[in-house]
Order: sequence, then C-alpha cells, then structure tokens
Amino acid sequence: MVDILHKIGIEKASATDAYKALTSHDGLSAWWANGTSGDSDTVGGVIKFRFGERGGFDMKVLKLEPARRVLWEVIDGPAEWIGTTIDFDLRPQDGWTLVYFKHQGWKEPVDFMHHCSTKWGVFLVSLKSLLETGKGAPYPDDLKIDSWE
Amino acid sequence: MVDILHKIGIEKASATDAYKALTSHDGLSAWWANGTSGDSDTVGGVIKFRFGERGGFDMKVLKLEPARRVLWEVIDGPAEWIGTTIDFDLRPQDGWTLVYFKHQGWKEPVDFMHHCSTKWGVFLVSLKSLLETGKGAPYPDDLKIDSWE
Repeated sequence: MVDILHKIGIEKASATDAYKALTSHDGLSAWWANGTSGDSDTVGGVIKFRFGERGGFDMKVLKLEPARRVLWEVIDGPAEWIGTTIDFDLRPQDGWTLVYFKHQGWKEPVDFMHHCSTKWGVFLVSLKSLLETGKGAPYPDDLKIDSWE
Repeated sequence: MVDILHKIGIEKASATDAYKALTSHDGLSAWWANGTSGDSDTVGGVIKFRFGERGGFDMKVLKLEPARRVLWEVIDGPAEWIGTTIDFDLRPQDGWTLVYFKHQGWKEPVDFMHHCSTKWGVFLVSLKSLLETGKGAPYPDDLKIDSWE
C-alpha cells in the first residue's frame, strides 16, 4: 500500500467554507483546475477536472458529509489514477479548519506518484490561500514543479 | 510501509549545484533550517537541524555520492522520526535536475506524518527556488502550513 498523505490548516475559515471550496464549480476552479465542470455536489455525480493538453481526471463523488468529508473515486484519466480515491477530511480545531488529505489505492510508488505527491501539496497550499486571502493558484496559474509541466 | 515521496525539478541548475545545497551548511541553511550546523559533508557525520522552540533533528549521514545521492538517518528528534531515513536522489534530465525524495521508515501514518509530507513539499519548493533564483524560504521564513507552527 502506498498512499499520498497531506495535512493543511486553514485559518479564519470554517469547515463549511472549506466544504464549499471542495464541492462547488467556483471553489474547485479557484484552487485546483480552472473550468471544472460536472456534478460536484451530489453523491454519484461525476466531476470533470481538466488541465489543458495534459488531459485530466473524471471523479465520481462517493461520499459527501457537509462541513466534514468529501470522497471521490477516479473513474477516468491516467492509468495509474483509475480506481484510486481522494479523500478530504475536515476537522475544526481552535479557530482553524484542518484538512487531512489522502490519495489512496496507488498500486506502485511510480515516478508519477512522486510528482503527484508534491503537486497535491502545492494545490493544498492554493486551497489554503483561496480561503484565507480570496485568491488561490489553480491550473493554469499553478506553480510548475518539474519538467513535465 | 508508509513513505513520504516527492519529486521536484530544478531548471538551469546542475546536479552538482543541488548536491552542494544538500551537503553544505550554507546550502541547507538557505532552503531548510537557518543555522544548520554539524558535519554535513562526511559519511558518518552528524548534522543538526534546528527549528527554534519546536526543536529539531540530528541526522547521521549514511551515503554521499557527489552530484547523485544524499542519504541521512534520523538519530535524534521527535520519536516518530527516529530511525527513519531521508533520501535525495538526483537525476539530470534535459537541462533539469530532478530530485526524487523519500522519507522512509515511518511505523504508522500518524497525524505528524501528514503534516511532514506537506511540509517537505513546501521545503522542496524552497530548494527549487534557492537554486533557480538564489533565494529560498528556510525556517524561520518558511511558509507556515497549519496550527502547529
């Protein structure tokens, strides 16, 4: 089992605000992939994230617990991602909202997994920035981290 | 087995430059922990990384391959870190230096591991910035990612 795990703390934003940023087109487009479409706020819905020429991912919404949890399964995209799950667990603590993130189900710790681990960190910093300052850095304005991008 | 894996690409910097940033006080102090001391460029040496009131880590240098690889073992610091290894694998590719990073040997995917995974990503972005622009963001000028900091 090889998982990508992250944690980020968001100050002065409620878990409800974080949940909105994870379940609305406006939110997802403002920290992860500009132009996100599909059905992002219904269990069973399919969300389409696109990253220009690099393609993208279709995610099926598996669980939604308002202000608490969002769970997706990748149903289309790069082979290594298909069948993996992406889990956002929101925990309020002392005026912060802590986001525990898990991208699980990778079969092997491939090159692409190393890239995605770092890149998820960059995008979670973008989520934090969006909620704290009103401005994230979603694709195509994301920080490019290596020669793939 | 739970590992923290990352990859970052550094443009217009050689693997020799990256190796220097991983094995010299000046380099380590400029992207990770300001005021790094100890013996950082000898196999068997012990490097001391400190983060103010939060304490720090003592690392024993296990392997050094110039312009290729740096491997440390944690011998003092937070209990979860002791005995874990930190591995920087440098690979030149098409004018870039790719850094494959592994922090291995975690016993359990604890809360602190989630934090450290994101924080290593932030510090690897700092390493990239140091080598590409001359300016990193080491502690205490690092991006704070959650309520622990």
